[in-house]
Order: sequence, then structure tokens, then C-alpha cells
Amino acid sequence: MVGLFHFQTFRDTRSITRKFCFLFLFLLPLTLFAQNNILVFQSDFGLKDGAVSAMKGVAAGVSPNIKMFDVTHEIPAYNIWEASYRLVQTAPYWPAGTVFVSVVDPGVGTKRKSVVMLTKTGHYFVTPDNGTLTLVAEQMGIQEVREIDEAVNRRKNSGESYTFHGRDVYAYTGARLAAKVITFEGVGKKLATEVVSIPYQKAVFENGKVTGGIPILDIQYGNVWTNIGKPVFEKLNVKVGDLIKVQVLNNNKVIYEGEVRYVNTFGEVKEGDNVGYFNSLLNFSLAINMGNFSEKYQVFSGNTWRIVLNK
Amino acid sequence: MVGLFHFQTFRDTRSITRKFCFLFLFLLPLTLFAQNNILVFQSDFGLKDGAVSAMKGVAAGVSPNIKMFDVTHEIPAYNIWEASYRLVQTAPYWPAGTVFVSVVDPGVGTKRKSVVMLTKTGHYFVTPDNGTLTLVAEQMGIQEVREIDEAVNRRKNSGESYTFHGRDVYAYTGARLAAKVITFEGVGKKLATEVVSIPYQKAVFENGKVTGGIPILDIQYGNVWTNIGKPVFEKLNVKVGDLIKVQVLNNNKVIYEGEVRYVNTFGEVKEGDNVGYFNSLLNFSLAINMGNFSEKYQVFSGNTWRIVLNK
Amino acid sequence: MVGLFHFQTFRDTRSITRKFCFLFLFLLPLTLFAQNNILVFQSDFGLKDGAVSAMKGVAAGVSPNIKMFDVTHEIPAYNIWEASYRLVQTAPYWPAGTVFVSVVDPGVGTKRKSVVMLTKTGHYFVTPDNGTLTLVAEQMGIQEVREIDEAVNRRKNSGESYTFHGRDVYAYTGARLAAKVITFEGVGKKLATEVVSIPYQKAVFENGKVTGGIPILDIQYGNVWTNIGKPVFEKLNVKVGDLIKVQVLNNNKVIYEGEVRYVNTFGEVKEGDNVGYFNSLLNFSLAINMGNFSEKYQVFSGNTWRIVLNK
Repeated sequence: MVGLFHFQTFRDTRSITRKFCFLFLFLLPLTLFAQNNILVFQSDFGLKDGAVSAMKGVAAGVSPNIKMFDVTHEIPAYNIWEASYRLVQTAPYWPAGTVFVSVVDPGVGTKRKSVVMLTKTGHYFVTPDNGTLTLVAEQMGIQEVREIDEAVNRRKNSGESYTFHGRDVYAYTGARLAAKVITFEGVGKKLATEVVSIPYQKAVFENGKVTGGIPILDIQYGNVWTNIGKPVFEKLNVKVGDLIKVQVLNNNKVIYEGEVRYVNTFGEVKEGDNVGYFNSLLNFSLAINMGNFSEKYQVFSGNTWRIVLNK
Repeated sequence: MVGLFHFQTFRDTRSITRKFCFLFLFLLPLTLFAQNNILVFQSDFGLKDGAVSAMKGVAAGVSPNIKMFDVTHEIPAYNIWEASYRLVQTAPYWPAGTVFVSVVDPGVGTKRKSVVMLTKTGHYFVTPDNGTLTLVAEQMGIQEVREIDEAVNRRKNSGESYTFHGRDVYAYTGARLAAKVITFEGVGKKLATEVVSIPYQKAVFENGKVTGGIPILDIQYGNVWTNIGKPVFEKLNVKVGDLIKVQVLNNNKVIYEGEVRYVNTFGEVKEGDNVGYFNSLLNFSLAINMGNFSEKYQVFSGNTWRIVLNK
Repeated sequence: MVGLFHFQTFRDTRSITRKFCFLFLFLLPLTLFAQNNILVFQSDFGLKDGAVSAMKGVAAGVSPNIKMFDVTHEIPAYNIWEASYRLVQTAPYWPAGTVFVSVVDPGVGTKRKSVVMLTKTGHYFVTPDNGTLTLVAEQMGIQEVREIDEAVNRRKNSGESYTFHGRDVYAYTGARLAAKVITFEGVGKKLATEVVSIPYQKAVFENGKVTGGIPILDIQYGNVWTNIGKPVFEKLNVKVGDLIKVQVLNNNKVIYEGEVRYVNTFGEVKEGDNVGYFNSLLNFSLAINMGNFSEKYQVFSGNTWRIVLNK
């Protein structure tokens, strides 16, 4: 009986509807009530003032049924690259239909377009088209891009304010989309199937070495995350337990040079040992077991950083 | 059909009720279910310990249907002025009926009253009456103030604990109000229509100059937010693109003196230029395009700070 | 009428069902809809990257009806003791049926067991069994412990990733339990009714003195929280308003020695005065009214710290 009336997924409500056709009229509202309605925010606003809360207030005013979450609001100010990285690190773990609102917008008020991108995986991204979409577009695939029509999708009475598009346009549009007040078509006119993309170094295997970039640090632990995935790494032909020669360079200057043991888990080495491992995104990473690799060796992340692996 | 059964706002459910009168009995529970139920927390507790979570746990125990959000929990310890500022920065963007619980309470255990203020805009504020309500009372208007009757509105079995009113009284009362377990009248006895107010300098136009205060910084970016709104500013008779002479003083000592360009958006000047602009609250503000005005010129905020604008 | 259809608690819906038996079929789904479904996260991940968001995304994918909250994600990296402390500080204030997911896991990938503990109070804790459960087991009582069967309770297609059990096992299992996709029995096989426990010094009364530990600081305010509860403290036979002799030692070296006034509330002394009081967990604590005791006297927390109280 419990299973019969189990209302936690849309699939369940549909099966009930089939079994109780005569209840159709009464149950239909419930199926709508059970929609996804998930809205996930990201910004460089921090959590010390009221900016994030104002965005969520506007969304709650669109519909009280929106379920709101966050990626992070601690993107370093104006750092579009990191905004792009955090989205691709997170979005694939949210269910299809989820609407992301990302506001890292150094060009607010300039001609950058305000867009909503739908990926082939069924996720929506509401953001200024300033490079924020670089990595999600690449890894999740662009289905369609639409430009936000501010004549429709801008909070009422917000015309006098020039500077908080995050609240008045992006949060408002994301909320309307998540709450099904508008369809994707209702966002605005269709654009070309492309987004502004930040150039960056990809992982390659050449002359017996693997070279890659360091897009980001796992800052909480000081681990160094490269963009070298397993397929490229495996061309080195090293096994778990082997030592790997590692060079880390910034602007072509060697910052770290040494050997790290390739492990599945930190528990395989003793405290303080350097390790290479595949992180939760399945990219090759450097760490010290119970320590901070980035701090100890002053290795950081960004466009100018490069890593070379050798057997 | 979708529009017909669109249950996302109370207004929508009412129109359905009108159209399907015979469904009244079955649909009424749904309309109640669709109530606002929004509870928004603010405090100076930080997010490193369990204090905020304990408040939310108490609220969830009152009703699982409360939708909980936050303004910020990073108010500097005991800073009632900033608590007041963050509330007025945020509350207007939340829908009417929203219940705010603000706990910055240096006088916990003293004779300050525990109150709930209803504003003319339909927002509720649950807080010690210690100045926290200064700015929301002024800008949103006081409808009615009631004192929390702890004989009724205090968490059961919390009598032995003297120091966590945030959890046992404020979160508990706010949750009961948000969940409609009590009406506003159920909070406790009606008080005079006034609250404790912190004196502060207002924006004025005198002798061809505009003088104002610096209530807060936009700390994430280092922008300096004054309390000078457009109506006062416009008496200077400057146009977008003009230079404005700016003096910033702390305790009557000049800290910054210079000219800034009045812009609609940062994109109108080059990186590193000083600008004056109207922030998302429509108050005059100082910034450096892609820089940190506060850090560069050591300009901060508070009662002792003053700004003078001249054509 | 409002009271009659008041749907905010399970108890209310049951009373309605009794009164309107003929509505049974229509109302049953609503009662299920009104289930607790609360999932509360804790970790040492911080909020700067996407790790917490990925966990919540996985949970939202299990069921859109889960209500997600947090204890804190600012547990110092690898600090199992503090994880244990934050749980016991918070969990008792959440309603029975709440599912906690705590991921502070320095031994990820080693042989520590992944478990779900049900307490006698009806709370669930999903975590590596590495000491995290020390204090909740002790204070809330162990009802039953089960080992997570990863053959069933591991996110699909997560097999290649070795290092993010928080997302793929703990968040996933916690969400399935909170959403009633699995029962407690569905977690995995039953273990002995015990958990890994961190040894620590308890509060005792001996030779006219009370000795205890300093498990944690109230870091936001710099207050020093001991583990000395009222029953032990009362053997000192001091009254509110009395002075108490206090010694604080680290590794048997005296760090602070002085007298503090025992108060119910900080308002009873003037600013800058040292006080002893019972905190919101009803444990004896040291503070400076409007000041920071920890910073001023360099008193911190942990296994090596000890406090002695004398009349």
C-alpha cells in the first residue's frame, strides 16, 4: 500500500494515474506538484552580505515551490575561469531539468549577452555569456542557446537599477524557468549553437610524456588537480604503486620537480608522502597524505601553469 | 491544461477553486499546502559550529513544510548596525508573508525585549529589540509590534538554558509563525508601534554639496556604499559621464579626496579607474573598475564616516 | 476550518483521516507527502568548491522531495573529534527520523567501515566509522548499527572513482534512507551494537575540585566550552554571583589561572569582565563579556587541555 501511493518521483505518480484513471482530475495537481523545480546558484558574491539572499528572495517570489541550492558563492571576484570549472565539477551530479544560475560578471552593463544554454544532458545554465560556459558546453554538449529577452524576463520595477543583473535578470529568469512559469522558448530568441569560450591548454601525450594544465586546486586540502584524464594518462603505461616523475612549471619556470607514488587511495602510503591519484572527477592529481601539496611546494593553478609526467 | 492546474502561487490556487467549486473539499488542503511558509535566518554565529543548524532543526521540528533560507550568518560579532543594514538590503526582495529571524544579541539575558514586528509591506521580523529593526522599520514601515510571550512561545524543556534565545525563542517563534501554528496575535501582547532605533547620519543637500554617511562596504569587491539616494544626489545636477569631487572623512579627518566619474556601468571606464555609481539598492557608491576602493584608500564604514560630494 | 485542514504535521493529518474516513483514498497520498524526508550534511570540504553541491545533487537525483540542510562544512580538515562534537551539539535539536551524513574521512579507501547508526532517539547517522560517532553514540544511545552494502547502496557508474565516497556512497545512501527508497534494513548487514570511539577526559569531582576537558571553543566569540555539566558542577556548591577559581592547563602546564564570576547571563557583569556560565548545551564555559577569552589568554581546545574549578 505504501509502495502504491509512493509519491516521490514523477514515474510513481504516473503509475498511480494509470491504476486510478477515475481519480485523474484529483491527482493531476499532485503530479505537477512533484516536478523537479530545482534552482542552483553560483556567484562571486560571498556570503557576508545580502546579495545571494536577495536573489533567492526574488526566486521565492516567482514561486514558493522552487527548491534552491548552491554550488558556491566563493568564486574569487571576477574569476570567470573558476566559475566555469566549478560548474563542470558539479552540474553532472544534478538531475536533468536542473536550472543553474551563475553570476560572475565583470562585464556587467557592457555588451556581453545574457543567455540560457540547454545542454544535451538536459541541464539549463542562466549566465552572462562571458566564458562561464566554456567547460560545461565542452563536456555536456550544447543543445540550444537562447538570449534572455529583458523586456519579458526582468523583474518588475527593476529598471532604475543598472548593476544587479544577478538578481533582476538571472535569478528572476532562472526561477521562472525552474518553476515552469516560462518554457525554454519563453527565455527569448534562439542564438547560434555556440558560446564564448576561454582558450586553455589540454592534456596531451607526446614523446613519451604526458603534458597538461592545472585548472584548479582542491583548496580545502591543498591538492593539485590537473586536467589529465585516465585515457591520456594510461598512455604512460604506469601501474598503481609505481613512481612517476613530475615537473610543475609556471610560465615555463620549474616550480616543483620530484617523484610521486601513483595510488588508488591515500591509505596506501604513510603520512607526509607525496602521491599521484585520480580525483573524484577522474583527473590526475597531486597530494601529500595528511598534508598540503600546494602550500609546501607553492604550486597554484591557472592558465600559466603546466605539468609534465614521465615514467 | 497545465496553466489551469498551475499550483505555484496562492493566487493560482484560488482561481482554480473558483472554477471547480465542487472540488472545494479536496482542493482546500492543497491550497493550504501551497502557502508561503518561508523562514529566513540571520545571525552573527558564523557557519563553523552547529548553532545555525540547531536553530533550523528546532524550526524543522515545528513543521517539516517550512522553507528555510539565510540572509547571512557572518554579521561581525555583536554588530547590531550591520544586522539592521543587511535586513533592509535583503527583506524587500522576499515575498510578503516571509518571516525573518535575526539574532545579533549582545544583550542576551538583559531586559531588551524579544519582539516580532510586522511591517506595512507584510514582512515579519523576529528579533531582540535592540536596534536591529532600525532600518527596516524606517524603510518598510511599522504595522504592529508584539512582544514574544515566552510562557507560550519558548521551546519545551529549554528552561534550564539561559543563553541560546536564538534557538529556543526566536527560531521557535519564527517557525511557529511561518508554519501558521500561531497567528501574529499568538506571538504575545501588542506593544507601542515603535522599536529601538540607532541614531545615524542621513543624506542631505546643503550649500551646493551633498553630505551622507557610509553605512556599509560591499566587502566582496571593496566598493563603498553611501546612504545617498537618487533624489538627494540629483540636487547636485550632475550627468552620467561627469566628474564629481569626493571627500571622505573619518571623525572629521579627510581620508580620501579626489574626483570620480559618474557612470551607469563599470564598462564605461577603463580598468583601474575610480567611479561613482548607483548600487543595487540605488544608493551612490564608490568603486574602482576591477579593483578595491576600500583597500586602496583605506576607506571603511560605520557611524564615524562621512562623505561629501561636490560638482 | 483552517485548523481542521492543517497539514503541517503527521499527527494532524492522522486526525483528519480519522474524521474524514471516506476521504481516505484521496488524503493518503498527502499524508505520505508530509513525511519528514530531512537530510543534514556535515563535512570538512569547505564551501569554496563544488564538493558539497555534488553531494546534494546526487541526493536530489534520488528524490526531489528530500529537504536538505547542513550542520557545517568548516570542520578543520581530517578533524574527526570536531566532527563528533558538532554532531552531538546539533543532532538533538532535529526531529526524530532525520538522517545525518557526516564525511570527515582521513582514512578513505582504507578498511574503516561505512556504516549507518540508528540512535535510541530515532536519528540516523551515515558516516565512516572512524570515531565520528563517539559522542552521539554516547549521548543519544545506539539502537542498531548497519554496514553500508556498496553492491546496492553506491551511485550507479561511480565504480571508477576511488576517492569521493562522500558523494557516491554516503550522500547516496543517506538520500535513499531519507526518501524511504530503502528501509534501515536495506542499508546492509547488521553489525555489533558498537562504534569506534575516541578516548577523552570526562568531567569528575574529586577532593573538592571539579576537573574536566575542553572539547571545543565557541570560535565565533572566543568562548571556552568545557565538558562539565551541571550535575558535576553543582558538587562545588557555588551560587550565581560567586567567584570561582579556575586553572586551565595544556599538557599539564598552567596556561590560565584566575577567578571568574559565575553568572546566568553576560548582562550581569560589566564589559570586559571574565565570566563562567552554562552554554546552550548546558556545559560550564568561560567568556569575557563582549570580549574573546580564547585569544586573550591563548586557551584552546583538544585532548591535551584540562580545566580545574575550585570554590
